[in-house]
Amino acid sequence: MYFDKITYNLVIMIKKKILVAQGGGPTMVINKSLVGIIQQAKKKFQVLGSLNGVRGIIDNNFIELDKLSEEKIKAIENSPGAALGSTRDKPDQKYCNDICEVLKKKKIEKFFYIGGNDSSDSLRLISEKAKRDGYSIQCIHVPKTIDNDLVLNDHTPGFGSAAKYVSCLFAGINLDVNSLPGIYIGIVMGRHAGFLTGASSLLRKRKSDGPHLIYMPESNFSMSKFFKDVMSVYNKYGKCVIAISEGIKNHRNKLLATLANNSNEKDSHGNVQLSGSGSLGDFLSSEIKKNLKIKRVRADTLGYSQRSFLGCISEVDQREAKLLGKKAVQFSYKTLESFSVSIEERKKFTSNYKIKIGINNLKDIAGKTKYMPQEFINHEGNNVTTKFINYALPLIGKQFPKFTTNI
Amino acid sequence: MYFDKITYNLVIMIKKKILVAQGGGPTMVINKSLVGIIQQAKKKFQVLGSLNGVRGIIDNNFIELDKLSEEKIKAIENSPGAALGSTRDKPDQKYCNDICEVLKKKKIEKFFYIGGNDSSDSLRLISEKAKRDGYSIQCIHVPKTIDNDLVLNDHTPGFGSAAKYVSCLFAGINLDVNSLPGIYIGIVMGRHAGFLTGASSLLRKRKSDGPHLIYMPESNFSMSKFFKDVMSVYNKYGKCVIAISEGIKNHRNKLLATLANNSNEKDSHGNVQLSGSGSLGDFLSSEIKKNLKIKRVRADTLGYSQRSFLGCISEVDQREAKLLGKKAVQFSYKTLESFSVSIEERKKFTSNYKIKIGINNLKDIAGKTKYMPQEFINHEGNNVTTKFINYALPLIGKQFPKFTTNI
Repeated sequence: MYFDKITYNLVIMIKKKILVAQGGGPTMVINKSLVGIIQQAKKKFQVLGSLNGVRGIIDNNFIELDKLSEEKIKAIENSPGAALGSTRDKPDQKYCNDICEVLKKKKIEKFFYIGGNDSSDSLRLISEKAKRDGYSIQCIHVPKTIDNDLVLNDHTPGFGSAAKYVSCLFAGINLDVNSLPGIYIGIVMGRHAGFLTGASSLLRKRKSDGPHLIYMPESNFSMSKFFKDVMSVYNKYGKCVIAISEGIKNHRNKLLATLANNSNEKDSHGNVQLSGSGSLGDFLSSEIKKNLKIKRVRADTLGYSQRSFLGCISEVDQREAKLLGKKAVQFSYKTLESFSVSIEERKKFTSNYKIKIGINNLKDIAGKTKYMPQEFINHEGNNVTTKFINYALPLIGKQFPKFTTNI
Repeated sequence: MYFDKITYNLVIMIKKKILVAQGGGPTMVINKSLVGIIQQAKKKFQVLGSLNGVRGIIDNNFIELDKLSEEKIKAIENSPGAALGSTRDKPDQKYCNDICEVLKKKKIEKFFYIGGNDSSDSLRLISEKAKRDGYSIQCIHVPKTIDNDLVLNDHTPGFGSAAKYVSCLFAGINLDVNSLPGIYIGIVMGRHAGFLTGASSLLRKRKSDGPHLIYMPESNFSMSKFFKDVMSVYNKYGKCVIAISEGIKNHRNKLLATLANNSNEKDSHGNVQLSGSGSLGDFLSSEIKKNLKIKRVRADTLGYSQRSFLGCISEVDQREAKLLGKKAVQFSYKTLESFSVSIEERKKFTSNYKIKIGINNLKDIAGKTKYMPQEFINHEGNNVTTKFINYALPLIGKQFPKFTTNI
């Protein structure tokens, strides 16, 4: 018994240390990746977690993740939100120096950062700084973002569940508007890329089902074309359900959201606040009322539930998010370099989709944005194509109630 | 074979006719009640459906519901929205005369109207008009409303599923705000009664879990008290999640929503449009930013997904909605009078809740509003009590993922 304890302590003492953190906007499955990393890494390593992303490193705010009970781990992996807390901090040079100092002192060998675009860029800065200092830390990026806008990734964990939420919401709205016809506008998250807005289409069954119009940031938004589109659908079906990305821009590349509301705040990455305000939806709805003389016009801004709603989770997304965490640990044994783990891009969009996992250089991912490919958007720029549906449909899983859109 | 067909046609010919319609805002389970009625009644009756509520009677827009296939029936009962379509029309005297004329001509013996407050009032008017005309039709009200504001009803079908949606949304938001702290305001449907807003509390696990503040229309809303409440929570937890009913009023009984937006439209019942606009949330959020100097303030207006979201349905609510439809048919055999079927009010709010179904006079339900009883709202008017949670928790069912709100 006594020896056992000594042996145990020795093992703990010689176990090398790795660190995990979560950055950026949380998702419904970001904790799946966290748990994937913990479960895979704790066999070999002491696993620390930094609270509130890189901010926890600076504040020396760590917890021991390998000591969490199995029960706790299970509850964490089923919870939306970032269990370690997140941050919107964007490390500058000074911030990076401080982070490196702490990681070095703590003898961290591998730093896993689960995050999106901005987080991967933070990670690149840290890894470059460490290299300059001759400190051999491996910086590993594990992707997540509901926006699905990371280059070299077929798709990113978090997107499938958010897409499921958006598609279930619009499937319900379609039936609601069937019951009480009118115009419905739903504003969907997505600053630069229209993937999530496109997902509003995924549970349509018939030609007359909404959303009838889908506007994504990749196509210029023109108010007069919008009016024409809406009127044409309304004349045909006596109703019109519209999905609009919060990031739509006019032909001068100006965000419609800023035209609707001049007081938008900016975060530390210089991003204008789009979500958490209903102004774009209200603006478009009042423009329709004014210009098209249609009375029943409703606008909802889908809001933060898109990335956090409890229970509406794609089982495919869950599985992949966890797998990516595990694979990130496994790949880290095969190289000494920093990297970003990823789901490799598909060659063709057919029904027999199979996930393939690989790695990329951090600098090839960091700070870059993936847009909807043109083949996913229709000619008129007001809907998605069948190719997009083939691409996105497998990602939202198969757990849906059987429902009908006509009696 | 030939004889069979004659017999069949004879049975159809002697089968008496009943009519079903759906009115007001649809819910996630309004089709369950419809299917309950169809399945129970088609053994004895020819079952007609009127499209778009009472409007379909005027427009002579009927379908034969007893001829729907079993497969179709199954798909309909799992679909949100009103499969027959709904209406916001409020019948006046002339409208009632016309309705009676059609029903009489069609030899309708029983008219089942699935609806809320306004719909039950329409039904009362029709039944009174028929009585005056000596036309012996039985008018039967089958309650539904996500607002849960029908008197003499413990709760109404539709509420449980909407409450589940709102509670899952706030459980997710709580975790989202744990990840990225700040102020979050969620505007919840509920014109007069705060039940649905109160449901935001149902999946809280710890004292520090949001929503930390809940404002319902039953308590006067004061801006200065609101600022004080928010600041006190923010100072304690570094964050604050707030659920606010769209129907909150100031001490002069003036809707905050109209103060936030003077252009609100009205429907034919004289109700101001509250949902489908983000203005109340935006107004409160900008007031907090201005007065409390807190930077990260987000406001979402939950919108129409509260009553239509596909797949987030309380199994208790589903069961009860269908049962109420069936029972309405069964009760109609025991009396010749018109009535409203209802879930009888509980005496005590304990964990062993059991549903009991009874009937009420139409005039005791119609056009009346049930408010949250005082014992459901805390002293300060900014949260719900344990009694409310005991009351509402059984209604959202038990199908939730196991999740945790702390690591």
